[in-house]
Amino acid sequence: MVGVGMKKHRVVIIGGGFGGLYAAQSLRRAKDVEVTLIDRRNFHLFQPLLYQVATAGLSPANIAAPLRAVLNKQKNARVLMAEVTGIDANAREVILKEGDRVPYDTLIVATGARHDYFGHPEWERIAPGLKTIEDATAIRRRIFESFELAERSSDPEQIRQLLTFVIVGAGPTGVELAGALSEITRDTLRHDFRRIDPRTARIVLVDASDRVLGAMHPELSEKARAQVERLGVEVLTNAKVVDLKEGQVSLVRDGKEEVIRANTILWAAGVRASPLGQIIADATGAKLDRAGRVLIEPNLGVPGHPEIMVIGDLARLEQDGKPLPGVATVAMQQGEYAARRIREQLRGQALPPFRYHDKGSMATIGRAAAVADIKGFRFSGYFAWILWLFVHLMYIIAFANRILVMVQWAWQYLTFGRGARLITGEERENPPLPAPPGIAKAEREPPRPATGDESRRLHRTGV
Amino acid sequence: MVGVGMKKHRVVIIGGGFGGLYAAQSLRRAKDVEVTLIDRRNFHLFQPLLYQVATAGLSPANIAAPLRAVLNKQKNARVLMAEVTGIDANAREVILKEGDRVPYDTLIVATGARHDYFGHPEWERIAPGLKTIEDATAIRRRIFESFELAERSSDPEQIRQLLTFVIVGAGPTGVELAGALSEITRDTLRHDFRRIDPRTARIVLVDASDRVLGAMHPELSEKARAQVERLGVEVLTNAKVVDLKEGQVSLVRDGKEEVIRANTILWAAGVRASPLGQIIADATGAKLDRAGRVLIEPNLGVPGHPEIMVIGDLARLEQDGKPLPGVATVAMQQGEYAARRIREQLRGQALPPFRYHDKGSMATIGRAAAVADIKGFRFSGYFAWILWLFVHLMYIIAFANRILVMVQWAWQYLTFGRGARLITGEERENPPLPAPPGIAKAEREPPRPATGDESRRLHRTGV
Repeated sequence: MVGVGMKKHRVVIIGGGFGGLYAAQSLRRAKDVEVTLIDRRNFHLFQPLLYQVATAGLSPANIAAPLRAVLNKQKNARVLMAEVTGIDANAREVILKEGDRVPYDTLIVATGARHDYFGHPEWERIAPGLKTIEDATAIRRRIFESFELAERSSDPEQIRQLLTFVIVGAGPTGVELAGALSEITRDTLRHDFRRIDPRTARIVLVDASDRVLGAMHPELSEKARAQVERLGVEVLTNAKVVDLKEGQVSLVRDGKEEVIRANTILWAAGVRASPLGQIIADATGAKLDRAGRVLIEPNLGVPGHPEIMVIGDLARLEQDGKPLPGVATVAMQQGEYAARRIREQLRGQALPPFRYHDKGSMATIGRAAAVADIKGFRFSGYFAWILWLFVHLMYIIAFANRILVMVQWAWQYLTFGRGARLITGEERENPPLPAPPGIAKAEREPPRPATGDESRRLHRTGV
Repeated sequence: MVGVGMKKHRVVIIGGGFGGLYAAQSLRRAKDVEVTLIDRRNFHLFQPLLYQVATAGLSPANIAAPLRAVLNKQKNARVLMAEVTGIDANAREVILKEGDRVPYDTLIVATGARHDYFGHPEWERIAPGLKTIEDATAIRRRIFESFELAERSSDPEQIRQLLTFVIVGAGPTGVELAGALSEITRDTLRHDFRRIDPRTARIVLVDASDRVLGAMHPELSEKARAQVERLGVEVLTNAKVVDLKEGQVSLVRDGKEEVIRANTILWAAGVRASPLGQIIADATGAKLDRAGRVLIEPNLGVPGHPEIMVIGDLARLEQDGKPLPGVATVAMQQGEYAARRIREQLRGQALPPFRYHDKGSMATIGRAAAVADIKGFRFSGYFAWILWLFVHLMYIIAFANRILVMVQWAWQYLTFGRGARLITGEERENPPLPAPPGIAKAEREPPRPATGDESRRLHRTGV
């Protein structure tokens, strides 16, 4: 047993999201503990606002906080930027990509989840999801490039396709993306083009279930649908995506197949746990659910390995017969519980099982439009929106970011401007469209879409 | 001759930097003119602050303004995001990459310059320059990754190499980068690591000439050198780079060869004009200087083609026997002159030759340290720094960015924090170092540096 004595209790945390970071911070006063936080990235990402980076309202750094900066005053914590490729549960060591091993007394795994493509991994390239900074800037590029290409085209069919945006999945992320896209087309870009009218853009929100925001109360789903439709978004429920090709979505709705030609297809459906789930299963014999989440005990431990805890979106735990939702508050509370369990254990005490206290849920739809459910008190519209703004500002980790986000929200609210609409990074590998037809005369080379490489080279030489 | 009559005078501007944008905006009240601004990128970039993006003080969007947003109220202007691959001077048409042609009555080319590698293009991969947003985020990645790798290493030699930063070229960009790096190592990261001490980092500023800021008065060069040395930067003048390899710079200084092992080598030397210079030469027979700049007439026209004007860093024009410097103010004044020349020409009037009015020059070195030369009145230190801040804030194009930059500068001044230190994007193709040696035990796979591809895949699947 690890005592209070001479040797410190080594806690290794994998993942610097809400779960991992809250666990690390909740151990800050535990003097007999030594925390190592491992993450592939050097920053904590505030994922709930990632859609605002994808839609050019905020900059990546506004919703990210360097992990070292967050933990630099916590003397018992160190940060390791590294990739975990294995766990040796017998030796109690985490194995890094380069082969190094990091020993632990308690391990907390909090590496989260991505979207699920329902057995079609090839769809990811066509319809990117929104989980990382790179996802967000790639989506931002795709959205704003569509308008640029449309402005240069003179083929009405092609313009239609370029100005059609399909979002698959009408959970909070899907609804938020649709609302932001509507604001971009109706307000932000309104006066920016000379040939196309951005307001003619078509935004389609698709979901296989019969309502939007399926995790919320049906009353709020109704309200959210009405609000999102008022913004000009087409909502297709009971619509199942059966095929995706570059520039084309095939749906089955009410038994009928339907094809939508769209240059921009965004994916906000399904949940697929991080590959760390499989690594834990291999190391401990733990069971995974269909989404790859690790089935854990009420004390957040892996069955047979109480010294390994899994928290947040990577964990599957039922409460009152229902699995806990994959939301930030669950991860935060589990992170705090995990830290408390370690502290109590070092004092020789046990903790009652973890219990999630649902403080409510909310989703924003657009300017002055949101829905919220706070302990059964449901409301929508302006007040829900103000509450959403307040709660999100409150949970942003870095104080400087809170100010920057506030300034940009205020600016955006007053002017409808979105300053971060930069088209940066590599071009798409397979642009779905031929080179747009002429602006002026003919005498054109055969259509030859730009490749990333070429663009890079030309770009590098400064054209 | 193009008259005031029925048909509008078509002005095509290539390049949305200071020169091109000022030319477009100066034509805003010219009702008989139709402006088409063509740029490969969808934003104007405030290059003087690019080094602050590379050193994590600002976000890319803070120093970029969408061209469409800047020009959306100017009814006689349209923006085209496209790449120019040729000019047909006889037909008076610009040829785009896809083969489309854009006709002009007057053409203004303002595509600027990049750094020059003095006949060693292969050095660019090893020592990136700083001209684009992508350059800046790649350099940012390189800088902050070095500290992460050093923290994981236990080989003193390797740590030394990882924490050595060499900047080639001691012009304003080189001096500013060196100053910012010094602040990062001494203040920003001071408490961030547990094994390494960032203050032990070595920052070397190299220049082939005998002083820093060679374009300024020798008195200010002296002062700048003293200020930058006070920040702990080693300044090597009369030092010529003779070879670059990944992780290694070879210099000749005072006849002796010297090798510095450094993980991060940054390039801020030389000037190489944009490839549009060659395209103009091919189309019109214009002459280029050794840096590839187009030799123009005092009315900014290409010899024999007064309807083609070249401005900014792409142009070579002498005044009082000396070539004009490659600075933003020259580009701005030339942009305004080009617009005025068009307006006068449409009224049948001629304009006296272009004359650059030097309002002064300045460079910042670090916190409260700068040098400035305003019409022969030379000063340095705190007041020069305040002036530098003020002038740069004033010239930022978008008002929202002015506020965001101000907030971040204030925050940084008070806390020494740099919130934008995100390591994003692709990993380096050829990391110069083997996988860092162990943190804990041995049992290591053979060193296998991560490739971009692998990282990408793992990253995409959400580890």
